[in-house]
Amino acid sequence: MNTSIERGGFTLPGESGYEQLTLELAKRWGADVIRDSDGTKLSPEIVEAGYRIYSTVCVIREHNAFAEAHPETQQQAFLSSDPVLAEGDTVVIVPLRGYFEEQFQLNDTPEAMPFWQVWDRTADRLVPAEQWQYKDGKITVCGAEPWHRYTASFLCWRIWEEINMYNHTTNHWTSEHLRQLDPRHPLAWEYLQKFMDDWCVTNPQTNVVRLTSLFYNFVWIFGDDMRRRSRFVDWASYDFTVSPAALRAFEEEYGYALTAEDFINKGFLQATHRPPTAHKRDYMDFIQRFVAEKAKALVDIIHRHGKQAYVFYDDSWVGMEPSGKYFASVGFDGLIKCVFSGFECRLCADAKVPVHELRFHPYLFPVGLGGLPTFSEGGHPERDAMDYWLHVRRALLREPVDRIGLGGYLHLTEGYPAFVDAIENMTHEFHRIKALHAEGAPATLPITVAVLHTWGSLRPWTLSGHFHETDWNALIHINEALSGLPVNVRFISFEDVLKGGLEGVDVVINAGRAGDAWSGGAAWSDPELVAALTRFVYRGGAFIGVGEPSACPGGDTFFRMAHVLGADEDDGRYACHAKWETGESLEGLNPCLRLIDPDTRVVDIEPLKLTRHAFGKGTGVYMGGFAYSPEAAKALLRLLMDLTGADTAQIPACDHPYVETAWFPASKTLAVLNNAEEEITVSITGLDCGELTLAPFEMRFVVGR
Amino acid sequence: MNTSIERGGFTLPGESGYEQLTLELAKRWGADVIRDSDGTKLSPEIVEAGYRIYSTVCVIREHNAFAEAHPETQQQAFLSSDPVLAEGDTVVIVPLRGYFEEQFQLNDTPEAMPFWQVWDRTADRLVPAEQWQYKDGKITVCGAEPWHRYTASFLCWRIWEEINMYNHTTNHWTSEHLRQLDPRHPLAWEYLQKFMDDWCVTNPQTNVVRLTSLFYNFVWIFGDDMRRRSRFVDWASYDFTVSPAALRAFEEEYGYALTAEDFINKGFLQATHRPPTAHKRDYMDFIQRFVAEKAKALVDIIHRHGKQAYVFYDDSWVGMEPSGKYFASVGFDGLIKCVFSGFECRLCADAKVPVHELRFHPYLFPVGLGGLPTFSEGGHPERDAMDYWLHVRRALLREPVDRIGLGGYLHLTEGYPAFVDAIENMTHEFHRIKALHAEGAPATLPITVAVLHTWGSLRPWTLSGHFHETDWNALIHINEALSGLPVNVRFISFEDVLKGGLEGVDVVINAGRAGDAWSGGAAWSDPELVAALTRFVYRGGAFIGVGEPSACPGGDTFFRMAHVLGADEDDGRYACHAKWETGESLEGLNPCLRLIDPDTRVVDIEPLKLTRHAFGKGTGVYMGGFAYSPEAAKALLRLLMDLTGADTAQIPACDHPYVETAWFPASKTLAVLNNAEEEITVSITGLDCGELTLAPFEMRFVVGR
Repeated sequence: MNTSIERGGFTLPGESGYEQLTLELAKRWGADVIRDSDGTKLSPEIVEAGYRIYSTVCVIREHNAFAEAHPETQQQAFLSSDPVLAEGDTVVIVPLRGYFEEQFQLNDTPEAMPFWQVWDRTADRLVPAEQWQYKDGKITVCGAEPWHRYTASFLCWRIWEEINMYNHTTNHWTSEHLRQLDPRHPLAWEYLQKFMDDWCVTNPQTNVVRLTSLFYNFVWIFGDDMRRRSRFVDWASYDFTVSPAALRAFEEEYGYALTAEDFINKGFLQATHRPPTAHKRDYMDFIQRFVAEKAKALVDIIHRHGKQAYVFYDDSWVGMEPSGKYFASVGFDGLIKCVFSGFECRLCADAKVPVHELRFHPYLFPVGLGGLPTFSEGGHPERDAMDYWLHVRRALLREPVDRIGLGGYLHLTEGYPAFVDAIENMTHEFHRIKALHAEGAPATLPITVAVLHTWGSLRPWTLSGHFHETDWNALIHINEALSGLPVNVRFISFEDVLKGGLEGVDVVINAGRAGDAWSGGAAWSDPELVAALTRFVYRGGAFIGVGEPSACPGGDTFFRMAHVLGADEDDGRYACHAKWETGESLEGLNPCLRLIDPDTRVVDIEPLKLTRHAFGKGTGVYMGGFAYSPEAAKALLRLLMDLTGADTAQIPACDHPYVETAWFPASKTLAVLNNAEEEITVSITGLDCGELTLAPFEMRFVVGR
Repeated sequence: MNTSIERGGFTLPGESGYEQLTLELAKRWGADVIRDSDGTKLSPEIVEAGYRIYSTVCVIREHNAFAEAHPETQQQAFLSSDPVLAEGDTVVIVPLRGYFEEQFQLNDTPEAMPFWQVWDRTADRLVPAEQWQYKDGKITVCGAEPWHRYTASFLCWRIWEEINMYNHTTNHWTSEHLRQLDPRHPLAWEYLQKFMDDWCVTNPQTNVVRLTSLFYNFVWIFGDDMRRRSRFVDWASYDFTVSPAALRAFEEEYGYALTAEDFINKGFLQATHRPPTAHKRDYMDFIQRFVAEKAKALVDIIHRHGKQAYVFYDDSWVGMEPSGKYFASVGFDGLIKCVFSGFECRLCADAKVPVHELRFHPYLFPVGLGGLPTFSEGGHPERDAMDYWLHVRRALLREPVDRIGLGGYLHLTEGYPAFVDAIENMTHEFHRIKALHAEGAPATLPITVAVLHTWGSLRPWTLSGHFHETDWNALIHINEALSGLPVNVRFISFEDVLKGGLEGVDVVINAGRAGDAWSGGAAWSDPELVAALTRFVYRGGAFIGVGEPSACPGGDTFFRMAHVLGADEDDGRYACHAKWETGESLEGLNPCLRLIDPDTRVVDIEPLKLTRHAFGKGTGVYMGGFAYSPEAAKALLRLLMDLTGADTAQIPACDHPYVETAWFPASKTLAVLNNAEEEITVSITGLDCGELTLAPFEMRFVVGR
């Protein structure tokens, strides 16, 4: 890890044609690296100005000539047609109807056709291949059951790389549509290795190849109706990795064949928010190994040319989860994560890689990811930047990273001097935080929290994408709160629990909706999981359930941990069973909540409302939901301290709901964050420093005696 | 059916000690019958005053001497202990802990013990009988799995008749606790027949034996903790019919044995609101036949003595559903239904029995069923009576009954002259309605609505008990609305649909919560059910789904009729699938609703909010819920007319939301109801009568030319 420097550790997006601006802002923001971006170039004047140079390489695209010459090397996907009603015994299905024809093209090659399927979705029955035929872009089903609905699952080529497609359709780009190659195809793989080698030769100025990212994009399926242009988007799905070759290789290795339905799943696909099937788990591991192996080969080429390979973990990253089993084997020199939030910093900081870099938002672009203006009429990029920084800053005080930076079109900052100032202030605060960490790590309370969900350590901190893409899930709010709290955090799976994963854990959090990957769904039907957590709490641990924790139909309670929580959700089966009249108001918790023990108490820890239930020596806590705010984070901390009885006397702190602190014992320094847009005066316990008055959003370091 | 009389058709509860009041009110209210009530007697002065006399007989209770001499003839039930956590490999369960010991007593006789069970509820596993033993009121389980939860299912005697128990605990009665006999026990049955015969001999003054009701009460389980005194209450459950003898007889007849778990169902029991298992269906039929057979024997005795047998359908009525297969075979002379609501009138009116009588509320008692004061400090019995009458009146205009009446302690009316007036007015209105029907039936629009649920015609109109006992179900609100609308109404089951039950139907309504008996639960996994309804709508029918209609996990939509509705509920599986952006606001419909067709439209028919979706020649309609009000009922009528395009030109009507009408073509009379507590002026279409100004709550008959 780099040590404290007042300058450096900042990556600036340069822009050809704006050489003076580039060098001026490089100086102002203390940059030591200049990078290009998707759509920008660096001119010789910039390249030769004495900065280290990152160059963006999107490995699988920008090869249209090759793709056109070898269309069979393009990437693919399974799709399902929308259901078609049988009005008689013949049904005609036009597979791609409703999809965006500039993104997809049917793969009706002899290699692909055996993987196509037709389903009677009303009867949930696969239609035998003898009963349907495909001709001229249409499937005709014979002997259909009248009034049943039929779908076709089929392979198609993806003929427009999705990030490029997004930029065209959102930002009105008019350049050629970029295609993408599948490294699984031997021709493509041979080509890509040569491309990487050639690229290194022809780009001697580049110090760091910024891989954006590897091979397979997250899933983004467009429709042809503008009322639902983006039909499906999941930042962590694997559907865009598939091909007949992959399916054959999988079968050879695993001894069983995957079918279209393993991907299509009645039309729902298999989103990251849903528990995976056993087949999907196998398939993910299979893809992860493939991605790691191919990535290593490219990184080796880059290293052979004396360059470093950093990877950007946001586009075409599927299969290279930084906490996955194979990530370290690739040999990346750095990981770059674009961040809006604290949890993303922790995710980046935790990766086993030499350099951790954050790319801040807003991206220097006219509009943001959500489609709202940033560097254009109506935009307030300085406010956006500060909003994100408030989330990031508290996480950085828990775990530092090595570098920060920006991306996009630098010239857009012209006319936004408040933004330029804001970034300058952030770089200062970043350096102060880094320097503080360099003197010694911050103190952590003796509290270990295990976030329990289906994916466990494969998907720590994140769910699927950025906060605002998953913000209907209580868990992302909880992860965001945890990212800045002085507690140890682990992410464990249900399998981990059975393998001793509760060892050393004080508090387990399970937060999700019934049946989703975060709550756990069918995992909870395992009595040994329930028994292990029951023992854990009975012997003194705490279990915090949020939303529909441990929910699983078929038991004698809907929440399988209801006996620990002292509360359950009425899924309808409590019909005619009376409620306990204990005088507690459950309003605001969950309209279907039932106390199943009259000793369960409703407690307010503003702004949190929860139930508490003593169970053996431990406690069950239920919350209907959790919405991140600085106050909610502090309330969560208070709850954790209360549940564990952790001895906190040694650590200076402040109990103001808007003020967070991090204590660095080696330097006897207390970092004090004002998370509010107003001046706040506070006193600090455990540090003899008198009252402090903090400016809006101020970060103050107070040194103890 | 009786024909119009200005007096008569009224049953008055007389009261010994209040002879003058009895005779005065009998005259004022036009009574032709005087009855006793639970807790009151009739003196000779009343009996001999020239009125017909109803005498209440609660067949299975008031036999404490016999029950004490033969405790083995008492009624029984299966109960489950609350779960007990295994902290080691031994678990001790005290079966009745948490239950009301004045209601239950363990049946640990050799005959009962083989039916006891112990369950590992964590693993959902029956514990082999070798692993547990019962001694001194405790069950000890050996070889338990630590940290699993165990329950015992056991038989117990019910030593306090529940209606009597309710009156004691609610109204502070102090008399002896009444026990109840099980007619299945040969000794008890012999005794009961003799009792009935003797009773008829010793009560020569009685014209009508008012059976209240037969043998088995609905299920009402009390706990020992006052914070949940009534643990479980279901007006239509069969759990109180069980005994080792019944179980043995069942096995002999059906060739398979029922177990405790068939009743206990993981502790949830089998409430009427939940779809029954196949075993429960068999058991219900078995009990219905037994009840009908024994009831017939008693009715035959009553008839032999020249008396009539009316049955009151509200206490101990289980197994004698008036629309059940065996009801008519009993030979009752009349059915008496206590009513708060319109749907209860329709239920009574539809029964195949010579005389239909309604017993109005409020019951002449200090407090009402809900525990609020009626004839006591703070009570307003006249308002309550009018509130119920407004519901009843509109239903009576659709289907008449023969008689009305009251029950309870007549002396309580002293000091409530407004109540006495209100009843007098009601008797007048009742006679006017009856007279109108006598001239010819009201016109019905050419619209046939089929309410589709699990129970079909076994449970028409009612769900399980009174409106206020089931008012969280949208369906009871819908039934209440339908009870006063000029449309034909059927109640059909899912089996009926497959047997041609949609023949002649215009609109199907399915309204319930996912998994409940009203929505249908697993019934919807039958593709032929879905196909039949799909065809029905495609060819021009309408399907109205309310709440979570046709909801069943495991399909390619959560609502199995989603393709017809053009809308589905996101049970979590739509994760990452984008919503249609059609500009329609789904607010107020269902927070998880998804349009699955961009052509689905949101429509307001005040106060209803719904979606409409054209499907073939028919329509799918979705509503998030339905709350009964006069306006909502009129909006529903408008919706039904709109969906069917029914020709309504021949029938005079009024489109004011608070005013309902019923057209009697034979007498060219339009009954006009003002449902509002304010004066309303309206015009009538199709009847040349000028503007009408109606007093608050007025019923006006307008005769056409």
